Amino acid sequence: MTFEARPSGRPVDALRTIRLTRDYTKHAEGSVLIECGDTKVICTASIEEKVPGFLKGKGQGWLTAEYGMLPRSTHSRMDREAAKGKQSGRTQEIQRLIGRSLRAAFDLQAFGERTLHLDCDVIQADGGTRTASITGAMVAAYDAFSKLAARGLIPAIPLKHFVAAISVGVYQGMPVLDLDYVEDSNCDTDMNVVMTDAGHFIEVQGTAEGAAFDRAGMNRLLDLAQAGIADLIKLQKQALGIAG
Amino acid sequence: MTFEARPSGRPVDALRTIRLTRDYTKHAEGSVLIECGDTKVICTASIEEKVPGFLKGKGQGWLTAEYGMLPRSTHSRMDREAAKGKQSGRTQEIQRLIGRSLRAAFDLQAFGERTLHLDCDVIQADGGTRTASITGAMVAAYDAFSKLAARGLIPAIPLKHFVAAISVGVYQGMPVLDLDYVEDSNCDTDMNVVMTDAGHFIEVQGTAEGAAFDRAGMNRLLDLAQAGIADLIKLQKQALGIAG
Amino acid sequence: MTFEARPSGRPVDALRTIRLTRDYTKHAEGSVLIECGDTKVICTASIEEKVPGFLKGKGQGWLTAEYGMLPRSTHSRMDREAAKGKQSGRTQEIQRLIGRSLRAAFDLQAFGERTLHLDCDVIQADGGTRTASITGAMVAAYDAFSKLAARGLIPAIPLKHFVAAISVGVYQGMPVLDLDYVEDSNCDTDMNVVMTDAGHFIEVQGTAEGAAFDRAGMNRLLDLAQAGIADLIKLQKQALGIAG
Amino acid sequence: MTFEARPSGRPVDALRTIRLTRDYTKHAEGSVLIECGDTKVICTASIEEKVPGFLKGKGQGWLTAEYGMLPRSTHSRMDREAAKGKQSGRTQEIQRLIGRSLRAAFDLQAFGERTLHLDCDVIQADGGTRTASITGAMVAAYDAFSKLAARGLIPAIPLKHFVAAISVGVYQGMPVLDLDYVEDSNCDTDMNVVMTDAGHFIEVQGTAEGAAFDRAGMNRLLDLAQAGIADLIKLQKQALGIAG
Amino acid sequence: MTFEARPSGRPVDALRTIRLTRDYTKHAEGSVLIECGDTKVICTASIEEKVPGFLKGKGQGWLTAEYGMLPRSTHSRMDREAAKGKQSGRTQEIQRLIGRSLRAAFDLQAFGERTLHLDCDVIQADGGTRTASITGAMVAAYDAFSKLAARGLIPAIPLKHFVAAISVGVYQGMPVLDLDYVEDSNCDTDMNVVMTDAGHFIEVQGTAEGAAFDRAGMNRLLDLAQAGIADLIKLQKQALGIAG
Amino acid sequence: MTFEARPSGRPVDALRTIRLTRDYTKHAEGSVLIECGDTKVICTASIEEKVPGFLKGKGQGWLTAEYGMLPRSTHSRMDREAAKGKQSGRTQEIQRLIGRSLRAAFDLQAFGERTLHLDCDVIQADGGTRTASITGAMVAAYDAFSKLAARGLIPAIPLKHFVAAISVGVYQGMPVLDLDYVEDSNCDTDMNVVMTDAGHFIEVQGTAEGAAFDRAGMNRLLDLAQAGIADLIKLQKQALGIAG
Repeated sequence: MTFEARPSGRPVDALRTIRLTRDYTKHAEGSVLIECGDTKVICTASIEEKVPGFLKGKGQGWLTAEYGMLPRSTHSRMDREAAKGKQSGRTQEIQRLIGRSLRAAFDLQAFGERTLHLDCDVIQADGGTRTASITGAMVAAYDAFSKLAARGLIPAIPLKHFVAAISVGVYQGMPVLDLDYVEDSNCDTDMNVVMTDAGHFIEVQGTAEGAAFDRAGMNRLLDLAQAGIADLIKLQKQALGIAG
Repeated sequence: MTFEARPSGRPVDALRTIRLTRDYTKHAEGSVLIECGDTKVICTASIEEKVPGFLKGKGQGWLTAEYGMLPRSTHSRMDREAAKGKQSGRTQEIQRLIGRSLRAAFDLQAFGERTLHLDCDVIQADGGTRTASITGAMVAAYDAFSKLAARGLIPAIPLKHFVAAISVGVYQGMPVLDLDYVEDSNCDTDMNVVMTDAGHFIEVQGTAEGAAFDRAGMNRLLDLAQAGIADLIKLQKQALGIAG
Repeated sequence: MTFEARPSGRPVDALRTIRLTRDYTKHAEGSVLIECGDTKVICTASIEEKVPGFLKGKGQGWLTAEYGMLPRSTHSRMDREAAKGKQSGRTQEIQRLIGRSLRAAFDLQAFGERTLHLDCDVIQADGGTRTASITGAMVAAYDAFSKLAARGLIPAIPLKHFVAAISVGVYQGMPVLDLDYVEDSNCDTDMNVVMTDAGHFIEVQGTAEGAAFDRAGMNRLLDLAQAGIADLIKLQKQALGIAG
Repeated sequence: MTFEARPSGRPVDALRTIRLTRDYTKHAEGSVLIECGDTKVICTASIEEKVPGFLKGKGQGWLTAEYGMLPRSTHSRMDREAAKGKQSGRTQEIQRLIGRSLRAAFDLQAFGERTLHLDCDVIQADGGTRTASITGAMVAAYDAFSKLAARGLIPAIPLKHFVAAISVGVYQGMPVLDLDYVEDSNCDTDMNVVMTDAGHFIEVQGTAEGAAFDRAGMNRLLDLAQAGIADLIKLQKQALGIAG
Repeated sequence: MTFEARPSGRPVDALRTIRLTRDYTKHAEGSVLIECGDTKVICTASIEEKVPGFLKGKGQGWLTAEYGMLPRSTHSRMDREAAKGKQSGRTQEIQRLIGRSLRAAFDLQAFGERTLHLDCDVIQADGGTRTASITGAMVAAYDAFSKLAARGLIPAIPLKHFVAAISVGVYQGMPVLDLDYVEDSNCDTDMNVVMTDAGHFIEVQGTAEGAAFDRAGMNRLLDLAQAGIADLIKLQKQALGIAG
Repeated sequence: MTFEARPSGRPVDALRTIRLTRDYTKHAEGSVLIECGDTKVICTASIEEKVPGFLKGKGQGWLTAEYGMLPRSTHSRMDREAAKGKQSGRTQEIQRLIGRSLRAAFDLQAFGERTLHLDCDVIQADGGTRTASITGAMVAAYDAFSKLAARGLIPAIPLKHFVAAISVGVYQGMPVLDLDYVEDSNCDTDMNVVMTDAGHFIEVQGTAEGAAFDRAGMNRLLDLAQAGIADLIKLQKQALGIAG
């Protein structure tokens, strides 16, 4: 394994430097800035005291996510989705993924007829924005539920599992963890993995953009992801001051 | 293994009856009705003699896909997307998946500045519409390129691999192949797999809707998918009259 | 009258071959594939147990129609309306026509606060898709109401009249019945006529695309339409097993 | 025939008072206020020095129409279409009708690569807004082409025929000409007819909203329309100072 | 002060000829045509017997405004906003300004749970359409409330102040009142001022399109506006037959 | 003057603490985080090597601005404009204001056929987001032009004036500078002022939300704004390392 082969000089199994800043903005019930190297996402969790129509009167809660990128979070400026009047397919795909992942983390039956809105807004992009969003949103959601519990509105944080997410991929023939933008734009295979603290899978989304990958390749990628996610969940718990 | 456990009585590793009808409609360069049990999708391939702006003058082709469901293809009537004025996130996610999968099947450099449009329209839905779309679109695209080649517009069919797709999932604790609607609505885990005739992966999209799945579970699902896709590719080649 | 003058070789007063296939798809209360020569339309009738806001509490029902064409139902591929985010003026005009025509066929007072949705989706177009839609939707609606009656939800099928529709036009100076695409694109005058089994008019929509037509011309066109519609209504009743 | 039977006291074959005011607004090449009783429509004709993409380089012109109603032109206020973000099906149907009718009046080959835009904006509605729009737009278009000719940009006004339009209908069993709002909302059959000064038909759009109409009824309606339109064309020519 | 310097020859402190025609259209509760020179705006006031959601049950009323221009109200034809599917930023800015201005004129607490809709539709534009809209809408709103009071639905017209609006600007170095189109397109500074009959400001919106303006310049502009608005309010009261 | 009267305890003529952080994100040519008390806006300036269609071939540049708020930048969560599919009237009004203000700061003739896009995204709102956007965008634009000049693409920074903006208002009868959210929601009059470093006005937008304001009141507000903006421009120049 040649460590120098990655543009960043990182070992193949190394995460970028991860930083989680809680209470990043002041209005939201949960607000986290997650930095994964140069990728920076503001994740806020907002509690609304009602549920969407299809759940009214069922006594359970809902959790949903939205995702956006500031127009110049990227190398060249993208059009603003609000100005174009619609969200791209990519945006919708990502926010559906974040929503499903976080709904697996919490027990929707256990926080009453409320909606938790997660907003993941990328202020600087350098690869891995969707997985950073999931990892950061986990912490923001936890904080929001803590506040509800502290106010006595729910008996406990309705936690099922911690979840975190990471990308893995094959860069120049080499399976690597946590791709940055340079790697991401040049890789053959890209896989986003979401797992729980029990080491189980919530989502696996692998795409061969260049050469298709075989079963052995997939296994190596899943090994990398599994280890990386275990580390991310440790960092989430540290940030929250929870014993791992 | 109790074969009776599936609502359809199918063995866990059995595909539904698959039928591929070529030349289903008369105008398209390729037109295939694919029936997977009660799921029926019309897949058409249309050649357009130009490429999108971002490829103009690069001497290569493009392939893109769109997906739709007739409003009453489903158990209860859905709103018509054209009337609502937008495609749902699910629709966009599916058509992006079909497009990526088929772009892996053909060599975009080898058919000139043309666009192949794949339209997958579900006329009856009973689970697995997105994987049926990919499997059917493969045949429609092949037919369209055959016509181009027959007219001498391209030297040969720009085939890289045959691709086909299938869903697998965990239904009542049991890993099963090719979920129908009843299974799909009640399963814990749902995975859509796209593979080539070389047995390599193009796409893996697994989601734990109920209990998260472990590594062993994933392995059993991938085994089922691999065998199912091999069978589907045989059926594609038979339909096209190609020696497997 | 030179019979050879029509591209299809049909006599000027001859319908194309009409086929009505009931129960074409399995979920809808009524589902009919109508084929008029090479024009093929799936007409489904769906019962919804509520009415639009403007009828709430009035004790009556509503009937409405939507129309669409698969992108490659036509000679060259059309843009998908769902992707463009709006229905064309032509589409809206046609679905308004289908709705008005079928509301004339049934007694809206006699089936409770329900909505009958008619979806007419063209899978292959060769002229006359709007009139085929009306003729097919009549049978689908009849089937849907039969099911409601069979379940005891309404006392009887709320039928006022059978209705059917046909196009007539002036092709190369010659008034002809049931224009196919080649005739339609080259005709001077095009008229769509909707009539009841009592021989009365529901809709007459005539347009001079080339030379304007005089009163005598209009009379000949209406004669052709009247005879053609009488035949279509016989076919509808045969398909439904109703004595004419 | 009881003349008193109409709410307005008009004889069954009487038009409302028609007034055509040319040069109603100052910027447009042609600008006409048409008043048909209490129905008032501003019709402007604007010349644009280019054609739509599908006609570029073909050396011919184009003519297109748009239609709108001020929100409080009607008895109760309607939502503003610009605010709702889309034109209704009715609006689109009407503007397509106006466009087709006026394209029959002028020779598109004879005014160069220009577009004539007709804007018909209803400032007060009392029935018959679409037919008033056509009749008024004819005069506005004539004025616009006169100006082009006067400037030497075209050799002559590219006139094929004068066209005008009127509604006829069956009000309380009685065929009547030029329905006002009270009649229109209570009639069984409503027919809009567009004819040339040669007495030929351009468009016939008849709808049975209540009882279907038979062939004899249709004939009586067409007689009324034919006479009414002949009068309207006289008024158009008078307004333009042209010998009839 | 050189009077000849303005293209119109008006003195710098002279309004254009103002005409207010009440009951201009017949359906609206208040309907006023305001003409300021060649600028002509139809202002209608419509009473709706309900309030927007955010005010339901609060016992107070609401007042809102919409603004539009006929496509050929301007020198060259503009695209129709209803056809484009959205209102421009300029349109929205103007209708927000009209709404705020008129909400300052009436006591929202004093006319029950009703909405007053003001529609300002420009039929001919020659500069100053937004200020003409406000001045005209004041009279239309007054008329609508008079009708409500006359029907005994409200005890009195809920008037707080008369309001009127005018533009002022710096044209070729010279502060002038009531800019017409030629001046408006060539001025350095443009200010729209809305004031009450007590001489107080409701809105001041000044923009330096060319050279920025200093404090002294602003003072001269406000002086001009103050005098002009006093005159406009006199004209409003005269039109309404109210002693000033 | 009672200093305690403001909720923040600030003197009536005191700005909040202002912080300008340059190079806040890494991709944009100019990127500034401006903090005005608890209001935080990311302002980026992006150079695009082309101009909008209406300026093509004229040899000059363009400058345009967009504005957005993260959904939970505010006290309660707002709907995401990209998800709703349109920008509100308020958003459009603000971005038009930012654009006009900054176009006054730079010489559009002096930077070639390029567009400077300013994106002002509010990550935390506490009143005064539009004026903070202008003040911050000034610095970001300056940085972007510096880079162009440093690369030799333009001879010099095309600066006309420094501009900055501030809000003033009447809070509980007292004219105050730089309103925070609590003051802003309870004030009678709110005025946004944009000025140059020469002390001239670019924009004045005053609105009486409660009691209308008289001329003396306006003068006191303008005095406050003038002093505040002079301070802001000093801070901009300090941040840029420019001698004032």
